[in-house]
Amino acid sequence: MQLRIPGPTPCPDEVLKAIGRQMINHRGKEFGEMTNRIIPKLKQCFQTKNDVVILSTSGTGGLESAVVNTLSPGDKVLGISIGIFGDRFGECAKTYGAEVIPLKYEWGQTAKPDDVRKALKENPGVKAVLVTHNETSTGTTNPLKEIAKVVKEFDKLILVDAVSSLSSIDLPVDAWDLDVVVTGSQKGWMVPPGLAFVSISERGWKAHAEAKMPRFYFDFSRAKKFAADGQTPWTPTVSVFFGMDVALDMMLKEGLPNIFARHARVADKARAWVKSKGLQLLSVDERFASNTVTAVKAPDDMDVAKFTSTLRDEYKVVIAGGQGGMKGKVFRIGHLGFITDKDMDEIIAAMNGALPKAKK
Amino acid sequence: MQLRIPGPTPCPDEVLKAIGRQMINHRGKEFGEMTNRIIPKLKQCFQTKNDVVILSTSGTGGLESAVVNTLSPGDKVLGISIGIFGDRFGECAKTYGAEVIPLKYEWGQTAKPDDVRKALKENPGVKAVLVTHNETSTGTTNPLKEIAKVVKEFDKLILVDAVSSLSSIDLPVDAWDLDVVVTGSQKGWMVPPGLAFVSISERGWKAHAEAKMPRFYFDFSRAKKFAADGQTPWTPTVSVFFGMDVALDMMLKEGLPNIFARHARVADKARAWVKSKGLQLLSVDERFASNTVTAVKAPDDMDVAKFTSTLRDEYKVVIAGGQGGMKGKVFRIGHLGFITDKDMDEIIAAMNGALPKAKK
Repeated sequence: MQLRIPGPTPCPDEVLKAIGRQMINHRGKEFGEMTNRIIPKLKQCFQTKNDVVILSTSGTGGLESAVVNTLSPGDKVLGISIGIFGDRFGECAKTYGAEVIPLKYEWGQTAKPDDVRKALKENPGVKAVLVTHNETSTGTTNPLKEIAKVVKEFDKLILVDAVSSLSSIDLPVDAWDLDVVVTGSQKGWMVPPGLAFVSISERGWKAHAEAKMPRFYFDFSRAKKFAADGQTPWTPTVSVFFGMDVALDMMLKEGLPNIFARHARVADKARAWVKSKGLQLLSVDERFASNTVTAVKAPDDMDVAKFTSTLRDEYKVVIAGGQGGMKGKVFRIGHLGFITDKDMDEIIAAMNGALPKAKK
Repeated sequence: MQLRIPGPTPCPDEVLKAIGRQMINHRGKEFGEMTNRIIPKLKQCFQTKNDVVILSTSGTGGLESAVVNTLSPGDKVLGISIGIFGDRFGECAKTYGAEVIPLKYEWGQTAKPDDVRKALKENPGVKAVLVTHNETSTGTTNPLKEIAKVVKEFDKLILVDAVSSLSSIDLPVDAWDLDVVVTGSQKGWMVPPGLAFVSISERGWKAHAEAKMPRFYFDFSRAKKFAADGQTPWTPTVSVFFGMDVALDMMLKEGLPNIFARHARVADKARAWVKSKGLQLLSVDERFASNTVTAVKAPDDMDVAKFTSTLRDEYKVVIAGGQGGMKGKVFRIGHLGFITDKDMDEIIAAMNGALPKAKK
């Protein structure tokens, strides 16, 4: 079976073997040594010298941690959204009492740095900007470098949802001066879900020291305190730690530039297929089409549910439909993490077979 | 290696094999069917007809979910504590703005139902009672049935930390009329950490409808909504779901009464060993000594760190020291989940060997 949704993603055999290891003491030497191996490797992938904390939660829990650790109720934030995950980030901040000024775009669009500048000029009281790097629901990647540059012109905090980009698409956290960056284990990391990884800049820690939103399980201070001993404040998802230790070695052996190039190559194949079939990407400007997930507009005569079920049942390829309001109108091919050129050729062959059978 | 801390606990081979399975689509049919198998089996173990939700988090995250889903800032709660986990539960409620009236006992003591009655009489404004069933830090089990009876005399909400008891010690949720009951996968369930299970009574849902504490990741309503389709609102810790599906079958095959009897038998062996060595249980009244973890007072001439390291390095048995202020003064043997009489005999033989080597 080729599991090609935008996460969970397939795991290499070496990772699965590690995942199935017997439990160990999470307060013992072996676990501490493992964590002390994992964190520096994570930092390499984040391209950062900032602290990186590991939370036992999903990507959404990671986003919640970014919000509650840096903001106070009543804080104004600019909530950039180009899709469902951008909406979610803002909704989470609103739930905890932030005043979210939305900067919302149609599906397939990306945020324009000039719009961000305008919004920050018009709203001088904004404390932080919430932005999705790669919007999984629309297969579109925001120009994060340019957006971050604008945010820094105004010396604001930037909180980044990099759940489906980090480790697959170049994202140099320090070079782009990003304050809080969140990703999840089940995306480009080639391990199962269960962990979120979050980098926190000095500016992020300063915000944390003043932030009044309530937090307990997701508290960064507790996480940092225990990380000093290679531990976590609460019992961690040990199995996924085992997997990460192995997967990170594989990733660093391949090398980040090679990983990014592989993702770009595989995504190019997907996009070339879309065009060859006369189909349309959901991304309005192909330059911003994602290298981790390709979202395709379903033509009027296409039955998306039939397409995905035929792919699954007849061709053993699992892709995703559209989320929320995009259900039935979009299909999405996940191509992140453990994927080769050959895998993409197989997926394309399967889609070639299933497409004619997916007429309404 | 015998891992005998009070969690994570060892997993049977069948469970580890399941844990190491390749990823599947968490929005697909297979995952939905698995969840729809797991939830009824969980309900059998909870001995409840209430809803049971699965959260991808640790036991502490489960406790946080109980607090934020049923309370509002400013609510008065009675925070019963007989140790570190009782303190933690109250601290979490306080963090989210509850006014916690502490009912605190010395280590080794249990809560007295009459004290609870007195406290509820003196504080008519109390909305909920927070109580630990089995206090992992002191190896002591509260008389939960009697406490719950008192709480119901006053028609208050009862939130129960059953992290290290449920599925190992009899805890009939419906018969005792418990509103929110929280447990964690790495304890008596024989699977790795990564999931919390929470039952919610009708009274719990009513409280939820009025509760104003902020919640997003841990929101029960979202969990219930997605559970209707065998799903979770956020990407779940899929590997631990695989393990639970297998472990629950093993547990129900053994039968709850047999599991409870096995835990009682193994704990009796541990307690008999303690007495045979002239050592003292931390539990002041042996009737309340826990059947899942035995906490032992270290005599003045005993070096606890030397005892645990000798056990680990020479005898391949991993037990726990004391937590927090009990460090160096207490050692704890975890005997919950996947443990047999023979395992306990081996642990005792190892402790017999290590004890004379642990003099200060």
